[in-house]
Amino acid sequence: MKNEEIFLATIIRNWQFQIKYFNATLEKLSDEQLLNEVSPNRNRGIYLLGHLTAYHDLTLPLLGFEGALYPELATIFIHSPDKATDNLPSVQSLKQQWNTVNEKLLQHFNSLSVDDWLTRHSNISEEDFVKEPHRNRLNVLISRITHLAYHNGQLNLLVKK
Amino acid sequence: MKNEEIFLATIIRNWQFQIKYFNATLEKLSDEQLLNEVSPNRNRGIYLLGHLTAYHDLTLPLLGFEGALYPELATIFIHSPDKATDNLPSVQSLKQQWNTVNEKLLQHFNSLSVDDWLTRHSNISEEDFVKEPHRNRLNVLISRITHLAYHNGQLNLLVKK
Repeated sequence: MKNEEIFLATIIRNWQFQIKYFNATLEKLSDEQLLNEVSPNRNRGIYLLGHLTAYHDLTLPLLGFEGALYPELATIFIHSPDKATDNLPSVQSLKQQWNTVNEKLLQHFNSLSVDDWLTRHSNISEEDFVKEPHRNRLNVLISRITHLAYHNGQLNLLVKK
Repeated sequence: MKNEEIFLATIIRNWQFQIKYFNATLEKLSDEQLLNEVSPNRNRGIYLLGHLTAYHDLTLPLLGFEGALYPELATIFIHSPDKATDNLPSVQSLKQQWNTVNEKLLQHFNSLSVDDWLTRHSNISEEDFVKEPHRNRLNVLISRITHLAYHNGQLNLLVKK
């Protein structure tokens, strides 16, 4: 295995680990517990689940894989704060969408070559990418890993000790 | 720049970004606010700061760089839960140690070659490393990045909205 392939495998492995870790947190929480705020006046568990699902869904087009599967989630879970609407999808349907999106992403991740990972993502123009070559797809993947870890730290606060 | 070097630069860049993001959270909080729990009956801000400092400090020997600078922190902030002792270091001294440790780490990170990053860390034997080559130094770095993001998500809950 070439160095660059070990690098890539290590990062994708960490993505899988963070998904697994988040899902383990999720499994410890009932649908009712997910309606609680992670800290007084902050986001509820269900909002974090929807937020991450919407974010990961939009990563499909951002990395040039395919169109978003559930673009309607972005309105509720990215462009609006929690509690802006009473009309949320159910926890069960969000969980299903969450799993579907992550499976899709992993399939695409595994199909990209090292060179593909170092090409630009779709939010940056060809001209800008010449000046800022770090704004590649790999960077998006690492950002998604840390974004997931960030909110997992919050969701974990709902787990009873 | 070779692919493997772009990979490495992207990861170290993300490490720096997460440190900067955590420090931005820290700057929004007074010493008094850091004595608050991030959620009822959970860790206080000061404990998270000490925990991360102790963890990053132990990363110095784990990656074979040098001995821990403040090994006494591990007893309080890793091996004991929050509120086990009233005798905590001050926020000011923890902040100083936090910055010192992170500067040291970055210096060492920047001095390692790509090949060095793919060698084993000191918690795994030569025999085991043959079977589990992903347990390399790079993997430790990525784990530290996600660990930091995880607790930053929690610390951020102390920031007044």
